Amino acid sequence: MKKVAIVGGTGYTGVELLRLLARHPQIEVCAITSRSEAGKAVSDIYPSLRGEYDLAFTEPTIQTLAQADLVFFATPNGVAMKQTPELLASGTKIIDLAADFRIQNIETWSHWYGMEHGCSQLVAQAVYGLPEVNREAIKSANLVANPGCYPTAVQLGLLPLIEQGLIDTDYIVADCKSGVSGAGRGASVGSLMCEAADSFKAYSVAGHRHLPEIKEQLALAHGAPVGVTFVPHLVPMIRGIHATVYARLNEPSTSLESIQKIFEIRYQNYPFVDVMPLGSHPETRSVRGSNICRIALHRPQGENTLVILSAIDNLVKGAAGQAVHNMNLMLGLPEATGLKLVPLSP
Amino acid sequence: MKKVAIVGGTGYTGVELLRLLARHPQIEVCAITSRSEAGKAVSDIYPSLRGEYDLAFTEPTIQTLAQADLVFFATPNGVAMKQTPELLASGTKIIDLAADFRIQNIETWSHWYGMEHGCSQLVAQAVYGLPEVNREAIKSANLVANPGCYPTAVQLGLLPLIEQGLIDTDYIVADCKSGVSGAGRGASVGSLMCEAADSFKAYSVAGHRHLPEIKEQLALAHGAPVGVTFVPHLVPMIRGIHATVYARLNEPSTSLESIQKIFEIRYQNYPFVDVMPLGSHPETRSVRGSNICRIALHRPQGENTLVILSAIDNLVKGAAGQAVHNMNLMLGLPEATGLKLVPLSP
Amino acid sequence: MKKVAIVGGTGYTGVELLRLLARHPQIEVCAITSRSEAGKAVSDIYPSLRGEYDLAFTEPTIQTLAQADLVFFATPNGVAMKQTPELLASGTKIIDLAADFRIQNIETWSHWYGMEHGCSQLVAQAVYGLPEVNREAIKSANLVANPGCYPTAVQLGLLPLIEQGLIDTDYIVADCKSGVSGAGRGASVGSLMCEAADSFKAYSVAGHRHLPEIKEQLALAHGAPVGVTFVPHLVPMIRGIHATVYARLNEPSTSLESIQKIFEIRYQNYPFVDVMPLGSHPETRSVRGSNICRIALHRPQGENTLVILSAIDNLVKGAAGQAVHNMNLMLGLPEATGLKLVPLSP
Amino acid sequence: MKKVAIVGGTGYTGVELLRLLARHPQIEVCAITSRSEAGKAVSDIYPSLRGEYDLAFTEPTIQTLAQADLVFFATPNGVAMKQTPELLASGTKIIDLAADFRIQNIETWSHWYGMEHGCSQLVAQAVYGLPEVNREAIKSANLVANPGCYPTAVQLGLLPLIEQGLIDTDYIVADCKSGVSGAGRGASVGSLMCEAADSFKAYSVAGHRHLPEIKEQLALAHGAPVGVTFVPHLVPMIRGIHATVYARLNEPSTSLESIQKIFEIRYQNYPFVDVMPLGSHPETRSVRGSNICRIALHRPQGENTLVILSAIDNLVKGAAGQAVHNMNLMLGLPEATGLKLVPLSP
Repeated sequence: MKKVAIVGGTGYTGVELLRLLARHPQIEVCAITSRSEAGKAVSDIYPSLRGEYDLAFTEPTIQTLAQADLVFFATPNGVAMKQTPELLASGTKIIDLAADFRIQNIETWSHWYGMEHGCSQLVAQAVYGLPEVNREAIKSANLVANPGCYPTAVQLGLLPLIEQGLIDTDYIVADCKSGVSGAGRGASVGSLMCEAADSFKAYSVAGHRHLPEIKEQLALAHGAPVGVTFVPHLVPMIRGIHATVYARLNEPSTSLESIQKIFEIRYQNYPFVDVMPLGSHPETRSVRGSNICRIALHRPQGENTLVILSAIDNLVKGAAGQAVHNMNLMLGLPEATGLKLVPLSP
Repeated sequence: MKKVAIVGGTGYTGVELLRLLARHPQIEVCAITSRSEAGKAVSDIYPSLRGEYDLAFTEPTIQTLAQADLVFFATPNGVAMKQTPELLASGTKIIDLAADFRIQNIETWSHWYGMEHGCSQLVAQAVYGLPEVNREAIKSANLVANPGCYPTAVQLGLLPLIEQGLIDTDYIVADCKSGVSGAGRGASVGSLMCEAADSFKAYSVAGHRHLPEIKEQLALAHGAPVGVTFVPHLVPMIRGIHATVYARLNEPSTSLESIQKIFEIRYQNYPFVDVMPLGSHPETRSVRGSNICRIALHRPQGENTLVILSAIDNLVKGAAGQAVHNMNLMLGLPEATGLKLVPLSP
Repeated sequence: MKKVAIVGGTGYTGVELLRLLARHPQIEVCAITSRSEAGKAVSDIYPSLRGEYDLAFTEPTIQTLAQADLVFFATPNGVAMKQTPELLASGTKIIDLAADFRIQNIETWSHWYGMEHGCSQLVAQAVYGLPEVNREAIKSANLVANPGCYPTAVQLGLLPLIEQGLIDTDYIVADCKSGVSGAGRGASVGSLMCEAADSFKAYSVAGHRHLPEIKEQLALAHGAPVGVTFVPHLVPMIRGIHATVYARLNEPSTSLESIQKIFEIRYQNYPFVDVMPLGSHPETRSVRGSNICRIALHRPQGENTLVILSAIDNLVKGAAGQAVHNMNLMLGLPEATGLKLVPLSP
Repeated sequence: MKKVAIVGGTGYTGVELLRLLARHPQIEVCAITSRSEAGKAVSDIYPSLRGEYDLAFTEPTIQTLAQADLVFFATPNGVAMKQTPELLASGTKIIDLAADFRIQNIETWSHWYGMEHGCSQLVAQAVYGLPEVNREAIKSANLVANPGCYPTAVQLGLLPLIEQGLIDTDYIVADCKSGVSGAGRGASVGSLMCEAADSFKAYSVAGHRHLPEIKEQLALAHGAPVGVTFVPHLVPMIRGIHATVYARLNEPSTSLESIQKIFEIRYQNYPFVDVMPLGSHPETRSVRGSNICRIALHRPQGENTLVILSAIDNLVKGAAGQAVHNMNLMLGLPEATGLKLVPLSP
C-alpha cells in the first residue's frame, strides 16, 4: 500500500480524487487538507463519501504531507509552488492539478497567470502529465504537472495529425464546451444554477489561460509554433468537455479512412483513448465518471476541413482521473489500476 | 463464474444491469435480448459500454435463456410471466424487474395493471425482493419480484416504525419525487427534455400502480391494513427518488432520539441502508449511481408528526442494483459483491 | 404616469420587477438602487434588459426614494424597516418584498428572523399583500408586506377549505418544492449549478421562516390556531413553486365536486387564480413568467384525504408579480395592468 | 383586426405562435389545425394557454384556411407545398415555417430533403423571410419562406462582413449549438430528458439541412459561392441557439473597432438585432422568449481570425417570432407589433 495526501480537498477535483481513490486497491489516503474545513470529517462535507473515509480535514503542514509517498495539489493556482521544493526535498513525489508547472516558459506563465512564479527553478524538471505523450517520462518524474481539462481534450484530438504533418498548423480552430464543474466549487454568481442553467454562452474569448498551454504543447509536437483560435463555452451541465476542432488538410488527397487508421494506431496502446468508428458523435455522457477520452473524425462534404470531436469528463480525464493515472505511473503501479470505471449513463 | 441473461436490454434498467455486471467479478452476461434491436452490438446502442461487452442483442428464446443460471427480466409488465414457467422448469432462476410478481393478491394486481395475470399459479412462490425484509427467503428463492422504485424508498423509511408499532397506520402520507428515468426509455412526449426539464408536477394523483404494492407490503409488516396517501411527482433530473413520508406518532412521549436508535439497529446489518445523523437532509445526488438508500429523521417543532426522508437512485437501489443484490443472494454470493459503488457527485 | 423606485435591484426579485415594469403602461421607474453596483448601468448587469432602461444603479438615499409615489424594497430581511418610517412620513407608499412586515406577532418575528424588529410600531398598520384575501385593505394601504413565495402557494390552496370549515385544521401537511431562484442571487455554494442541478433534497425540515407566516395567516382565516407541517424542497429548476397539500376532510360525505365548486366561486373574481378541472396536474412551467396560480383538487381513492396541488412562478406570483399587483391596487390602477403575461412554455 | 390561421399547431413553433399572437393587438387567430388533435381545446393540450383561446383544433381544410388573411404552416417539411397553390389562389397569404420554400435551387432542395418538390413552380416567387435582408420584398410578398433557426443566427453574424468584402469566404467555420426544442415535439428517444440532459454532443456533422440554406443565402450576399463548415451541437437546455462563427480577415489591418462600427450601422434600423459592445459574450438566456438576436465581435489575441458570437431564441427569432415579424410586414402593420417582448431571465 502506498500513501498519498491531498492538499485542498474541498473542491471538485479534491472530492473526485477521493471518489477514485476509495476503490484503488493499492492506495491509502493518509491525509486530506483544507484550511477552511480543518477538523471536519470528510463525510460531513461530502455525504456521497459516507462510510468511505474516516479522515477529517487537517492543516496542510509539511510534516503531514511528507509522510505520503505522493501528494496531490488540488489547490488554486500559485499554491503548489510554495510547498513543492520542501516536499520534493523530503522525498515525496508531487502531482499538481493546478497550473503552476504546466508551462515551461516562465514569462508566458507569469503573463497569463498574473503573478510571479515562486518556484521557477523547478519548472524545467516538471513533466507535463499527459500519459499519451509522456508516459515514460512520467514514470521517472518526481513532479508532474497535470494538464488542464481543455488542453487534454484538444491535444488528444490533434496530436496524431500534427505528429504526422497532416494539417495546416497555422489555422486551427478549437471550439470547446465545458460543464459548469470546470469553474470549481467556489461561490461565484456566474456558477449559480440560476445563472448557468438553461443557457449557453462563450466566455474568455479574448484569451483563456489554457491557450498558452495548448500552444506550447502542440508546438512541441510540431517542432514549431502553431496557430490556434481557442474559444471556450459554458454548457448547462455538471460534467463534461466537448472539443470540436477544425483543421485544414495539407493534402486534399489524404483520405479520412487513412486518418482514422493513424488515430487508431497512435492510441492503440493507450487504454483511455477510444477512437470511435467513422461517423460517430461522442456524447459527454458516454464518458461521465470515467477516465476515457472518446474521439471521432469527420470530413464534412468531403471538403478540405477536418472536424475532430473529442469528449472527456473534465473532472476525471480532465483532472482527477488523469492525476491518478499519473500517480500509478510514478509509483510503479499498472497504469489503469483503479481507473476501470464504467461511465454512468443515463 | 455464474452466467446470467437479460431479457429486454434496451431500457434504462437493462443498461444499468449491464453497467453493474460489467465489474461483477463472478458474473458473466451470456445473453442480452431485444426483439427490436436484435443483431446490433450492445456498444452501438450504448456507447458508454464500448469496450465492456462483445455481446449483440438476440431474440429472447427459451433455449438462449435457459443456458443462464439466472435470468433478469427488464421488460414491460406482463412479459416475464409468459416465459417464467418454462424457465423455472428448466432450472433457471428468475428476477423480474417489472411488476408481474410483486403483488400477491391477484385480483388487486389485475385491477391495477389492467390485464389478466398469465401465471397466477406461481405468484405465491415468488419472493418479494426487498433484502432488508426477505433476505433469507430470497436466498432460497427461484423467482424473485424485484420491488418498485417508489415502494423501495417508502418501505425502507417506514418499516422500523411499523414493525415497532410507533405510528398511526391509518394516516400516512408518502409524498414522492422521481427523476425522469423512472418513466423509462420509451419515446413519449411527456418524457421529452422540453416537456420535463425546468418544470415540476405531480402525476397519477388519483392512483399509481405502486400504491397497492406499498400497501400490501406495509400491511404484511403491520399485520393489518394500513392507510397511505401516495402522490408521485416528476423532478427535472435524470436519476433519483426522494420520499418525504409523514406519520403521526402514537405516543407523543416517544423521543426522536429513540426512534433514531431503532432505525440504526434495524438496519445495522444491511449494507445498503445508511441512517444519517439526526438533522440530515439526504440529497439524491449523494446516492447517484450507488445502491445506497439514505434515510434521515425529523420531528419538526417537536410536534407529533414525524418526517422521514428517504433517498435512492431509482435505477440502482430502485431497480438494477437491488436486482443484483437479489441475484447475489440467490446464487450464494456475498451480498454486496459488485455493488460497492461510490456515488458520483457532483 | 406614476413613479416608482426599487431598492436592492440586483437580486432576482429586483430584475423581475424591472422586467414586469418595462411593459407597464402607467409606471415609470425613476430610480433603482444598489450599494454594491452604484454607478453601473442596469443593462450592464442584466443584458436581458438592454434597450429597456437608461437607468444606472444609485445609492438608496431617502431623497432619491422620496421622489417616487411608491418604493419597492427587494432587499434582504431587516433592510426595509430602517427606511420605512421616514419614507412613509414623506408620503411615499411602500411594498416590502422581504419579510419585515409579514408577521404581526413581533415576538414570533424576532424568534424566526433572529433580530430585533427595528420598526415594530408600524407592523400593525402593514397590510399583508395577498390580494385574494386583502384586496380592499391593500387599496388604502401605505405599507404592504408582500407575501412569501411558499405562503402564497399554500394559502391559495387552503383558504377556501379553511374558510368553509371543511378540513381538520389540526393536521395539515404542506409538502412544497421550489426552484433554485428562491434562494436568491447571492453567491453561495448550495445554489451552485453543480450542487443543485440533477439532484433533489428537502431542506430546513426542522423549521423554515415561512412556517410562522403560513400559520399566522391561516389562523386568521380560521379564527383559531392551525397545525401545519411544512417541508420545503429544492428542485433542480430555475423558477417555480409547487405545493402539494394534504388535508383530512371533516365530513367524508363532502363530495370533491362540491369542493371544486367552492374553489371556483371563491376565486371567480380574482384574475390570477386558475382553478383547473378536476383531475388536473398543474405544472410549474404552465405558469412560468406569469402571475397565475394554478390549483387542482384530488381525493385519491375516494378516501378521506384531500390533495391540493398549487403551482406558481416564485418570482412572479410569489414575489415581483404579486408586488406589482399590490402596487396597482395601492395606486388606484386596474389590478391586472401590466400583468397579463402569457406563460413561457416550453 | 386581421385573421390568421395556423396549420399544425401542436408542435413547439405552433404553440409559440399562439403565445405571441395572444397579445398581438391587431390579430385574431381564427383557426388552428391538427389532424391528430382535432376536436380538442387548445387549452387542454397547452395548459399554459388556459384562458387565452377558446379555439379547438380542427382539420386543415382549404375552406377553413381560406377565411384567414394569412396562414402559418408550422408543419413538417413537405406539407405546406401541398396546400400553397390553392390557398394563394384564394387570396390568402402564406408563411411557411418549414423548409419547403427556403431554397431556390430545386435540385439542391430535393437532394437534402429527400423528396420531390411538389410545388416547384412557386419557389421562385417565394421570398426568403429574413427581414434584415428582404424587408421590402417581404412587404409585397404573398408567400414567405421563414428561415431556419441556425441560418438566422449564422447569417446575421456574417452578413455585414460578407457584404463589405472583409473576410475570406472560402473558409468560414460556423460552430452552432441549439437547445433541444429545435428537435421539435415529436416523441423520439434522442430528445428524451434522460438522453439529452446533462450531456453535450455534435450531430449531423456529415451534413445538416441548414447548410445548403446558409450557403445559398450567403452566396447571394457575396455574389459568388462561399465555403462554410457548419457543425450543429445539442445543448441540454430548452430554448436557444448560439452560433460561434470563425472567419479570416482579408486585411489584417482592418481594426475590430471599424468592424464593430460596420455592424452597428448595418443593423441600426432593424429593431431585433442588438450589436453588443466589444468584448461582450451574449448568453442565450438574455434573449429567452424574445425576438432579439444579440451579436458580439471578438478578435482573439489581435490575430487574423475574427470570432462572431450570435445568440437567438430558436423558437422566436429562429421561428415563430420571425414569422410574426414577416406577418406584420406582409399585412402592412408596424413591424414590431406584438414583438416587444422582454426576455425572461433568469
